[in-house]
Amino acid sequence: MAVIYRVDMSDLSVRAEQPSEAYRDLGGRALTSAILQAEVPGDCHPLSADNKLVIAPGILTGTGAPCSGRLSVGAKSPLTGTIKESNSGGMAAIALATVGVRAIVLEGLPTDNRLHRLVVTRDGVRIEPVDGLQMTGNYDTVAAQFEQFGKQAVCLSIGQAGEMKAAAASIASTDIEGRPTRHCGRGGMGAVMGAKGVKVIVIDPAGGERPKPVDPARFKAGATRFNEALKKHPLTSETLPTYGTNALTGVINEAGGLPTRNFSSGYFEDADGISGETQHDTIVERGGVIAHACHRGCTIRCSRIYVDENGQYLTKGPEYETVWAHGTDCGISDLDAIARMDRMDDDFGIDTIETGATIAVAMEAGILPFGDAPAAIELLSEVGKGSPLGRLVASGAEVLGKTYGVRHIPTVKGQSMPAYDPRAVLGIGVTYATSPMGADHTAGYAVTANILGVGGKVDPLKPEGQVELSRNLQIATAAIDAAGLCLFTAFAVLDDPSALEGICEMLAGWYGREYASADFLELGKRTLLCERRFNAAAGFTAADDRLPDFFKKEKLSPHNVVFTVPDEDLDEVFNFG
Amino acid sequence: MAVIYRVDMSDLSVRAEQPSEAYRDLGGRALTSAILQAEVPGDCHPLSADNKLVIAPGILTGTGAPCSGRLSVGAKSPLTGTIKESNSGGMAAIALATVGVRAIVLEGLPTDNRLHRLVVTRDGVRIEPVDGLQMTGNYDTVAAQFEQFGKQAVCLSIGQAGEMKAAAASIASTDIEGRPTRHCGRGGMGAVMGAKGVKVIVIDPAGGERPKPVDPARFKAGATRFNEALKKHPLTSETLPTYGTNALTGVINEAGGLPTRNFSSGYFEDADGISGETQHDTIVERGGVIAHACHRGCTIRCSRIYVDENGQYLTKGPEYETVWAHGTDCGISDLDAIARMDRMDDDFGIDTIETGATIAVAMEAGILPFGDAPAAIELLSEVGKGSPLGRLVASGAEVLGKTYGVRHIPTVKGQSMPAYDPRAVLGIGVTYATSPMGADHTAGYAVTANILGVGGKVDPLKPEGQVELSRNLQIATAAIDAAGLCLFTAFAVLDDPSALEGICEMLAGWYGREYASADFLELGKRTLLCERRFNAAAGFTAADDRLPDFFKKEKLSPHNVVFTVPDEDLDEVFNFG
Repeated sequence: MAVIYRVDMSDLSVRAEQPSEAYRDLGGRALTSAILQAEVPGDCHPLSADNKLVIAPGILTGTGAPCSGRLSVGAKSPLTGTIKESNSGGMAAIALATVGVRAIVLEGLPTDNRLHRLVVTRDGVRIEPVDGLQMTGNYDTVAAQFEQFGKQAVCLSIGQAGEMKAAAASIASTDIEGRPTRHCGRGGMGAVMGAKGVKVIVIDPAGGERPKPVDPARFKAGATRFNEALKKHPLTSETLPTYGTNALTGVINEAGGLPTRNFSSGYFEDADGISGETQHDTIVERGGVIAHACHRGCTIRCSRIYVDENGQYLTKGPEYETVWAHGTDCGISDLDAIARMDRMDDDFGIDTIETGATIAVAMEAGILPFGDAPAAIELLSEVGKGSPLGRLVASGAEVLGKTYGVRHIPTVKGQSMPAYDPRAVLGIGVTYATSPMGADHTAGYAVTANILGVGGKVDPLKPEGQVELSRNLQIATAAIDAAGLCLFTAFAVLDDPSALEGICEMLAGWYGREYASADFLELGKRTLLCERRFNAAAGFTAADDRLPDFFKKEKLSPHNVVFTVPDEDLDEVFNFG
Repeated sequence: MAVIYRVDMSDLSVRAEQPSEAYRDLGGRALTSAILQAEVPGDCHPLSADNKLVIAPGILTGTGAPCSGRLSVGAKSPLTGTIKESNSGGMAAIALATVGVRAIVLEGLPTDNRLHRLVVTRDGVRIEPVDGLQMTGNYDTVAAQFEQFGKQAVCLSIGQAGEMKAAAASIASTDIEGRPTRHCGRGGMGAVMGAKGVKVIVIDPAGGERPKPVDPARFKAGATRFNEALKKHPLTSETLPTYGTNALTGVINEAGGLPTRNFSSGYFEDADGISGETQHDTIVERGGVIAHACHRGCTIRCSRIYVDENGQYLTKGPEYETVWAHGTDCGISDLDAIARMDRMDDDFGIDTIETGATIAVAMEAGILPFGDAPAAIELLSEVGKGSPLGRLVASGAEVLGKTYGVRHIPTVKGQSMPAYDPRAVLGIGVTYATSPMGADHTAGYAVTANILGVGGKVDPLKPEGQVELSRNLQIATAAIDAAGLCLFTAFAVLDDPSALEGICEMLAGWYGREYASADFLELGKRTLLCERRFNAAAGFTAADDRLPDFFKKEKLSPHNVVFTVPDEDLDEVFNFG
């Protein structure tokens, strides 16, 4: 049975334990949130010894279930002060599952300022000091590890931002090619890892084994069924492999919900220059890679490899959120500049959403002009230098905006909103306002029924039905995050009953008992309520489940709309049985 | 009858109105809080058009009542997000009362980036643009006004920090000598004035008249009685005029409650070098002034004029809070360096408490070493330059600490604690935690009974009795702030029944009706509950009425104590009839 490793940085000790009854059936977000809620005082400082960083593959991760390689990393967030689960692709989750890790829990604080490395093998976890990596970016950090541990190793690492304990610091997971391109980006998990004094976690999967279901035949039947549903859905079988997540730029722009120049408009006139179609053609023309998988076992392949004008590797993707944050939201329509910033974000180890949104707020503050890509790159480069301005950028939009007296700061619970203006996509606004994670599109992606026509249709401009939509999606998402499945599998789940049946069949095979869709949704509900309990202990109330006032007062073009979902409705999101 | 001037910066219009029934009997903090609670949406952004800056002399200000020249300035705070009343001495309150102003309410936002001046005379308020003052300090700003308006004018102004809309920005009031040394320091009122585009308010008292009580004889009898009580009390008649507020350095250090090096100890080994006694001798030796009044009609005279080694004017005071914040809390024991920083704070227009606490947090962050006075002065000078680091300093300890990943940030509701460690002075900890203003010693100065033996005795290290002590002081303080009386009159009120009887007699004479001590306390209670209502609308709950977790976990030397007042007790503070 997979074990939980307790790594105490205060005395550099490691303890392996069998999961207790409360944690036994859990994985991914369900496990990270359960551990945090049970063991971390809600009112502790996120960078203090009392906080814990919990790293957990999903329940199905490593089993061979399609698209199941997601990693959950949780802690009390330095960005939001809430509980946080930050989720990424890359190879780390599968590698951890393969060597029998249910979770790694980083506890305590080191007594000196040295950086440490954890080495995770099938024999356990060891802690060792690493020298020479101070203020080193993720690319060089992982390159040094591969040199020492070989190419089969997988790394989780922090860049300069994590070492600086910056609130937007991410944790990078290496991808199939061994590049640190997949990030637990949101909520400053990298800062918590930095506070714990851990620069890199090297996972050596040598000799590891694929976790085995109790009922392999049933599991396999479920996997097949699930995979067929993914293959049938046009988004997961065609749109995402061809255009990647950036397929959304054109769609959301046309819907009038693409936040432009720090959320001052819902339409970007230069969107064509950075759209998924343009990105596709650019990559193909230059000899990059489309339909790329960020981890083994991914059948959707929404990732891509972006090369520069000379055909040299520059970065992955960039993803829609990155293109929006560094592009549209900053008034920038230069795809190469955006790709360069994506590379810098990955190297410094900062969340691309938070960082782009922060640059846009810096533009509103007058630090640099909207649309000035070279100035944006220069501003971003300050992060790597650790200058006061760089630390501000790496601290997120709310802190930089407050420091510069900016009125329009598009955050909830201190976390920047992603690439959908809540005034024109009301359902996602409900998720931003109420998710236990702060503003987060992945927590309940109402863009589906609001814009994409997936899982039914709910008019994005009318308040009716948005709460129910967001609630159902938040429940389903929490369960998907627990399973370790990629969120994009939800498109199939929403439109094709056989997808969820396949998931439940896999889980039935995994546990060796009946597993109904109601059990799956119950897992999601339990996880959300657990997270809400943590947040209540941390001092969050209904008053925190609100959007900033300007979304309710200032009209968004082109629809000339404000956020109209009433507060009382927002307070109903978590009233489920 | 005195009028309320509504100044709308969006169209540069001024409207004079008679106070409505709800505002008629109010002044000072009672009036600023009543207007804010009734007229400002709790969830608005503090720098938005919906916020209002309310400037109000106290009920008794200008009447000739002893020590009644206090000014209340209120707004939703950019520092805390709560309602805020920031209180100062200086000549502004008396000048406003003399020209018949009950309050000035700055509303809306200007449509351009020009700076404006308000000119207040007995004929009304006019708005005019002022050029050439961009990023000018308070000293030069007011000097330019006196040149134009003559020496009898009184100024309220902002320095560079207010123009930058920095969260620690203050509003300066000129003192008797026309120097901008008296500040509404706390909570960023200067940022709100800056957002409104007002650089300076010039009050020309020419032709103004002292406000007249309905029953002058009764008023005069009350004033005499009150004055006698002030003359009798040793603190107001001897200690404060002789040693100023800095008399406290030795006392609080001996009590083990003097927060040292960012609240890491309660005892500063070099306190003697910056004590009130040393300050007294230094000032006297160099030909400065002790027993100086910050406004006319002050009989306590706790202010002083500090001169440099050549006998040249350097700054006022410095006050105890400034000496602590820039001295003890930073490990600095150089009185001249502290005085220089006080001068810089006054010139830039930033709160000395917040600024000193922020420098201490910067020291903990490793930006500069503890104890390094030249480095502290250099860091502070960044504020005037408007550099990223300077903006961080002017944004307060919480923002700077978050940006640099600091764990020990001694704030409540985002506002830095003053010069008493709540672990060793539990009563003041209750006030810090629960005051509607964020951490604020003046809101309920429990140091009286905890340490000074004024108003009874309550053991500072035992949780029993602290809630009742803080509650009663918060009620009395709110009433004193409404009356426009200096808080130091409370020493006499606490020890000598005739002081409160004198105040009530003055109020009876003022209103021309009976006024009992119960009425006075009722005024305080009403004011507090009004402020709590505003904060509830702004999203604050009991969960916000807490100290940071390290005060409950990390022991403070020399007493080796933590903050032990239970949360349930804190929640009882505002349960009064």
